[in-house]
Amino acid sequence: MRTVRVGLIGLGTVGSGVVDILDRHREDFARRAGVDVELVRCADRDPARAEALGLPASAFTTDATEVIADPEIDVVIELIGGTGVAREFVLAALAAGKSVVTANKALMAAHGEEVMDAAAASGVDILFEAAVGGGIPIIGPMKHCLVSNEVESVMGIVNGTTNYMLTRMAEDGLDYADALAEAQAKGFAEADPTADVDGLDAAAKIAILASIAFNSRVTLEQVPAEGIRSLSPADIEYAREMGYVIKLLAIARRIDGAVDIRVHPTMLRASHPLAAVNGVYNAIYVVGDSVGETMFFGEGAGSLPAASAVVGDLIEVARHIEQGCLNFVGCTCTEHLEVRDIADLTTSYYVRMHVADEPGVLAAVAGVFGSHGVSIGSVIQKSADETGAEIVYVTHEASERAVRAALAEVERLAVTRAMGTVIRVEDL
Amino acid sequence: MRTVRVGLIGLGTVGSGVVDILDRHREDFARRAGVDVELVRCADRDPARAEALGLPASAFTTDATEVIADPEIDVVIELIGGTGVAREFVLAALAAGKSVVTANKALMAAHGEEVMDAAAASGVDILFEAAVGGGIPIIGPMKHCLVSNEVESVMGIVNGTTNYMLTRMAEDGLDYADALAEAQAKGFAEADPTADVDGLDAAAKIAILASIAFNSRVTLEQVPAEGIRSLSPADIEYAREMGYVIKLLAIARRIDGAVDIRVHPTMLRASHPLAAVNGVYNAIYVVGDSVGETMFFGEGAGSLPAASAVVGDLIEVARHIEQGCLNFVGCTCTEHLEVRDIADLTTSYYVRMHVADEPGVLAAVAGVFGSHGVSIGSVIQKSADETGAEIVYVTHEASERAVRAALAEVERLAVTRAMGTVIRVEDL
Repeated sequence: MRTVRVGLIGLGTVGSGVVDILDRHREDFARRAGVDVELVRCADRDPARAEALGLPASAFTTDATEVIADPEIDVVIELIGGTGVAREFVLAALAAGKSVVTANKALMAAHGEEVMDAAAASGVDILFEAAVGGGIPIIGPMKHCLVSNEVESVMGIVNGTTNYMLTRMAEDGLDYADALAEAQAKGFAEADPTADVDGLDAAAKIAILASIAFNSRVTLEQVPAEGIRSLSPADIEYAREMGYVIKLLAIARRIDGAVDIRVHPTMLRASHPLAAVNGVYNAIYVVGDSVGETMFFGEGAGSLPAASAVVGDLIEVARHIEQGCLNFVGCTCTEHLEVRDIADLTTSYYVRMHVADEPGVLAAVAGVFGSHGVSIGSVIQKSADETGAEIVYVTHEASERAVRAALAEVERLAVTRAMGTVIRVEDL
Repeated sequence: MRTVRVGLIGLGTVGSGVVDILDRHREDFARRAGVDVELVRCADRDPARAEALGLPASAFTTDATEVIADPEIDVVIELIGGTGVAREFVLAALAAGKSVVTANKALMAAHGEEVMDAAAASGVDILFEAAVGGGIPIIGPMKHCLVSNEVESVMGIVNGTTNYMLTRMAEDGLDYADALAEAQAKGFAEADPTADVDGLDAAAKIAILASIAFNSRVTLEQVPAEGIRSLSPADIEYAREMGYVIKLLAIARRIDGAVDIRVHPTMLRASHPLAAVNGVYNAIYVVGDSVGETMFFGEGAGSLPAASAVVGDLIEVARHIEQGCLNFVGCTCTEHLEVRDIADLTTSYYVRMHVADEPGVLAAVAGVFGSHGVSIGSVIQKSADETGAEIVYVTHEASERAVRAALAEVERLAVTRAMGTVIRVEDL
């Protein structure tokens, strides 16, 4: 058994988990998986991190290019994140003939093709299981076990921060601001929560999942994303009364030979397997033409869960080195499916709005919807006071384009005081 | 790309699904997975099955040994099941240097070591994803993605027949006999339901999962199994009142360096991820030291779901042939953990019994439990009539050995009319 030499760039949350797992289990991996993986060199801008992890000074550098240039190193683990220097480091490592393991969702979602082409050109592996769903096995199962399927849809709760916030809003009636403050206090949300609450993190992940599921490259910029900032406890309560929960879903479906992909708050039937996924947990739901419905559930973030996926990938690379089959399964994007405009979406819509409390209002609003071919499935009017009345409409299935046009016109009605939340309602 | 030639033995439910998938997707697999798999020969005792599938006469034989002896065939798919001729065919195929894909849980649970040794000796693959959980990816994820973990426990709902029956009993109050009759009428249960309702099917599956999870061989005969015949709607209703559901769980845990393994009806907290898995669905819940909690959910049986797993394995074998890395990951049972006696189990117990409706009964029964060191957590007494009273005890954590001794003594009390169901209550 030869020793596979590993360089690690980035000693943050996930990197420290990787050091920990390799420290505890290196001998187990040799015995159980037949591979000997040795962490020989680590790089981080902050030497204090290496000290805190007890790494010897000789195994540490503040210059990541030293790790990439080290001829002894077989595999580089990139855990810096982002599309700046991380991209340069990954491409340089691949060009140097080293396999790469990364947790970098932004890189894979924006530059996946470039990175995978570079790996193929050098005949090495690029594995990125940790980029989606933390430690949850999902990329491996889709590229291997489920490869026998024509995947019809892949969708999931892939952002733990927003799922925690929505769970707190649903279970204890917190409003958005309080839920965010609590998530930040618990370390589940960052000081600048934009990437999470605006759905950008989820958009990168679904771009990666869709590319694998449909064998057709989808990039981050092709994914329309709406976040959860506009949701209120009232919306969640209305949803509950109608038998739904509200989740920030990342959705990708194969529709008429094209890809329907998007991230937005979604009203989902309470009986759907994804509806019970609460707190910081993630789950990815995959429907294939043979396997039917499947779901993969677990902790979507955190040091050790994500490191579990990174080290799983590392062991797989080591097996490929041991058996001489590097670049074992590379890029699988052999098709070229079009990505649909979200305006072409057909679904139901929940619309909450504030109107004047006077006769004829319901008829006026319904008339506008009707003139755009949007029919109303149900109307709820609860409270009315001197400021007017709150009305909730749920449409029958309609095109997003028609609903948007109708809403623009409804907003201009004299009886409309304020437009509230609009949420897509899906029977997925 | 070379063509990988496949022989299929067994054209029953799963076999016909395999024929269907290869028929529809062979060109997709060549394009997307880079392997060309051709089904060249099928065997079944019943020629009518081949005709129904539209297989040409030249590609069919009633003699499976012809498939195994065919020098053109690279991979044999064994879908006969059982440990009789199936074992002989699998060993003969491996000895002839052919890789084998099988869905045979009985074979792998009873003769796994023999079969895996034979594959290693010939330097070929033996893959069996379909043996557990139908199409749900679980063996692949455990041998690859989760290989970085020390698995603490693996447990699941791995028998769809009994889960369907328990769901019907819970949701509509059916008794055992009616639930079984309905499952048989719908084709979810066989005319002889023994393997399902007595937990033997689940026992084979957890033996396989435990062997992989703990890297230590566990065989079918080492798994104590209790089925669901003794459960009544009353038990399910009591469970619900206490915040539990009753599931037939297959459980394997690593305890003090040994393996605790068993199949039995289990009272599980309603908030546990497995508690919401209803109907014919299966789910496997795995806890690892790094990944934390994960769960894998899907259809546990059926022609196409199981065939999805078989063809997934076949494509993996074809990739190994293409890349020259057969016997890629063979047997991973490198440890030798002891299997614990179930009498050493420590958990809580639900005990339903019928007693005389007279003063002092509760004290008498509690006294017996106490004399065996078993303390009672709660007591429910609901109905009493001329035949006596029904009492439900839930113990605090106690050893199975002590509880059994106590129950034997309780049964002999003069006030005891009849012992009812005993169910393990687990906070897993």
